[in-house]
Amino acid sequence: MSIQETLQKIIKQVKAGIHPSDLLELIDDLNDQQRKELFELLSDEEAALIIQEMEEFDQVSLLRLLTKHKASAILKEMAIDDAADLLRELSPEEVKELLSLIEEEAEEIRGLLKYPEDSAGGIMTTDFIALSEDITVEEAIIRLREVAPEAEIIYYVYVIDSQTKLSGVLSLRDLIAAEDGTYLREIMYRNVISATAQMDQEEVARIVARYDLLAVPVVDEEQRLLGIITVDDIIDVIEEEATEDIYRLAGTSEVEGVNILEASVTNIASKRLPWLLLSLLGGLLSGSVIGAFEATLEFIVVLAVFIPVIMGMGGNVGTQASTLFVRGLATGEIEKRDVWRYLLRELKVGLAMGIVNGAIVAAATLLWQGRPILGLVVGIAMFITITFATLIGTLVPMFFNYYGVDPAISAGPFVTTINDFTGLLIYFYTVSFFIKYLV
Amino acid sequence: MSIQETLQKIIKQVKAGIHPSDLLELIDDLNDQQRKELFELLSDEEAALIIQEMEEFDQVSLLRLLTKHKASAILKEMAIDDAADLLRELSPEEVKELLSLIEEEAEEIRGLLKYPEDSAGGIMTTDFIALSEDITVEEAIIRLREVAPEAEIIYYVYVIDSQTKLSGVLSLRDLIAAEDGTYLREIMYRNVISATAQMDQEEVARIVARYDLLAVPVVDEEQRLLGIITVDDIIDVIEEEATEDIYRLAGTSEVEGVNILEASVTNIASKRLPWLLLSLLGGLLSGSVIGAFEATLEFIVVLAVFIPVIMGMGGNVGTQASTLFVRGLATGEIEKRDVWRYLLRELKVGLAMGIVNGAIVAAATLLWQGRPILGLVVGIAMFITITFATLIGTLVPMFFNYYGVDPAISAGPFVTTINDFTGLLIYFYTVSFFIKYLV
Repeated sequence: MSIQETLQKIIKQVKAGIHPSDLLELIDDLNDQQRKELFELLSDEEAALIIQEMEEFDQVSLLRLLTKHKASAILKEMAIDDAADLLRELSPEEVKELLSLIEEEAEEIRGLLKYPEDSAGGIMTTDFIALSEDITVEEAIIRLREVAPEAEIIYYVYVIDSQTKLSGVLSLRDLIAAEDGTYLREIMYRNVISATAQMDQEEVARIVARYDLLAVPVVDEEQRLLGIITVDDIIDVIEEEATEDIYRLAGTSEVEGVNILEASVTNIASKRLPWLLLSLLGGLLSGSVIGAFEATLEFIVVLAVFIPVIMGMGGNVGTQASTLFVRGLATGEIEKRDVWRYLLRELKVGLAMGIVNGAIVAAATLLWQGRPILGLVVGIAMFITITFATLIGTLVPMFFNYYGVDPAISAGPFVTTINDFTGLLIYFYTVSFFIKYLV
Repeated sequence: MSIQETLQKIIKQVKAGIHPSDLLELIDDLNDQQRKELFELLSDEEAALIIQEMEEFDQVSLLRLLTKHKASAILKEMAIDDAADLLRELSPEEVKELLSLIEEEAEEIRGLLKYPEDSAGGIMTTDFIALSEDITVEEAIIRLREVAPEAEIIYYVYVIDSQTKLSGVLSLRDLIAAEDGTYLREIMYRNVISATAQMDQEEVARIVARYDLLAVPVVDEEQRLLGIITVDDIIDVIEEEATEDIYRLAGTSEVEGVNILEASVTNIASKRLPWLLLSLLGGLLSGSVIGAFEATLEFIVVLAVFIPVIMGMGGNVGTQASTLFVRGLATGEIEKRDVWRYLLRELKVGLAMGIVNGAIVAAATLLWQGRPILGLVVGIAMFITITFATLIGTLVPMFFNYYGVDPAISAGPFVTTINDFTGLLIYFYTVSFFIKYLV
């Protein structure tokens, strides 16, 4: 398919009402000039619907292709929270210029831009419906029919009192099921679950997941309704946070503002190198443990053969322990009050795994090297290493968490490095302790 | 607070309409006898609402406390998909007995139980609203007002044609905004995004996230509507799948059917041991590399000092590479058609990281040991190890993925073990190559 045909196909599909998500792959195939052409051919509203579905870095590069006039016209048509998110990625000068062309919505967008990107305020929209508690079901439905095409979500109707404070909520289903003449205040649900604007997006996600909500209202200190956060944005938050944790566990961080396939080698390497340098330092420190026991090693060189299995097992046991703990905290399965109980249970698990693996490695050593005492010594060292590694794997993220640092950061190369070091120390001290039986 | 007070408090809160999620902690404090008492005091409907919010293992143990009569009465009041999910955890005899007491809903529940637990059919509900395309908006709203209190979700109205095939969808908002006399077929959206009953739940989650849906219809081969999946269940799927991936990356699997804090030491150890045994075997194999070069090591014992840094770096680089690839596949950022391009970029990243770390370790060795040739040799070995580890970290999950095995399984201890082995091989071969300059 030629590029020109692709362009025609996209336009045809837009007019046919295809979901904008399904057009992104086709748009990917266009070059900058053709993209510019495409978005100038589309109406502002069509363009806005497509841009909303794009990744942030694609949005930014597209917006910069267009004239300021067209760009601001598209922004005006976008959902207000999506417009704010996009503007966050631009320079202050660009934001100023674009907002000056928008008029009406500019003030609302500026309001949203005040909040940090990953706070409730940063992901909320101000397109919501709030009705007075003193109107009837019939009046409410008439009002909803008027605003339906505008508001982001009308499945929940928020109810405010005479001081414009959030006093209740009704689902559209409650409203439809109620008698026409009933007042909202009679049927509204008063225990409204809400978020504050400063709340971390992760906490908001936990609330939405816990109460199975389709949207959550965001209020200020005086319970005044500032905006709402819809469940589709919460799904993005949950995926983002899981990715962040996974990256941290693996000792890397996310390349921001660009698709992973488009990112430069330098950009990607710079996200991974800090962790590797930590690991490099750790490796040299672990090496210095071996250096300290060089005389012993010179004496019985076969001892070197067990360095990999001691290090490898300590590292893996530590990763298991820290990952389980970090994920348990993230999903809420492990709560603050449970941590000591959890640590105690981990100690028992560590002892059990230490006994099993210690016995196996002792037997394997005996078979392999034909030296029963060596087998026993390696087995004992393995048992102690595994028990310790389990404890360290749990204690390090506990410690980070206690001091308010994301425990996922500690749970990757950090724990592995500590365990490599302590594993080798344990191994060589055990060997030294039994040295007279080994020669 | 005494247990009796807790019991009273829970009942008071239930009657006050507190969200059932907020009662779970209080219920946790009760013993079995009190739990039984509590649920016998509650109405079937109240009990059902609370049970629906519980974790599966808590649901099962509670249900077994109650009489079959009470248990089946509660099941009858639960959302049909939640009831089916709960029954999946029971023995076939229990299911048979409970369903025989339910009557009406039993057939529908049996229908759901046919589908695998993690398929679209396994998470869908049959409580949905389907209207004929030949009725008017006014008729539709009247119908919705009748069924509103029953159906799981009425924010989307599915429209079926005269052959009962799914032909369109309307949001409640579209319906409310439309003129009374309009026929549904005139305003419905015809390109309905749907799932099939056999589809994996992860794929369904991807669809819901991609199109920002509140629910997705599930159809059979003839496009007949079988059920719907709501977004709150999709959130659970996304969290579950992220946890599963994180566990696999760390070389463990999830303890099923029981809270992590309640699980026995044996149960937990049994989930982690298989990976550790793999790692143990790998460690011994890596040790055999050292064994093969024992003569060299005996000759220059200081070479042992660099074993940890070579192994540690190979392991971490591999974990980074495999984790980034696995997560990229899971979130859809890396698509099948991109993998070779991705691999090539990783090779470049590996080379870059290899040069930086090789140079640093060479300099560190020179400073530490005062031997420039040794520094050069260690630096070269490090450079090759890192480049290789990056490639292996990407190729192994690519390979698993190609053969339809979850790449997350390969990306943890598996990659680390291979990289430990190859890292040591590379190190000792490099050393042997330069041996005449080292003595």
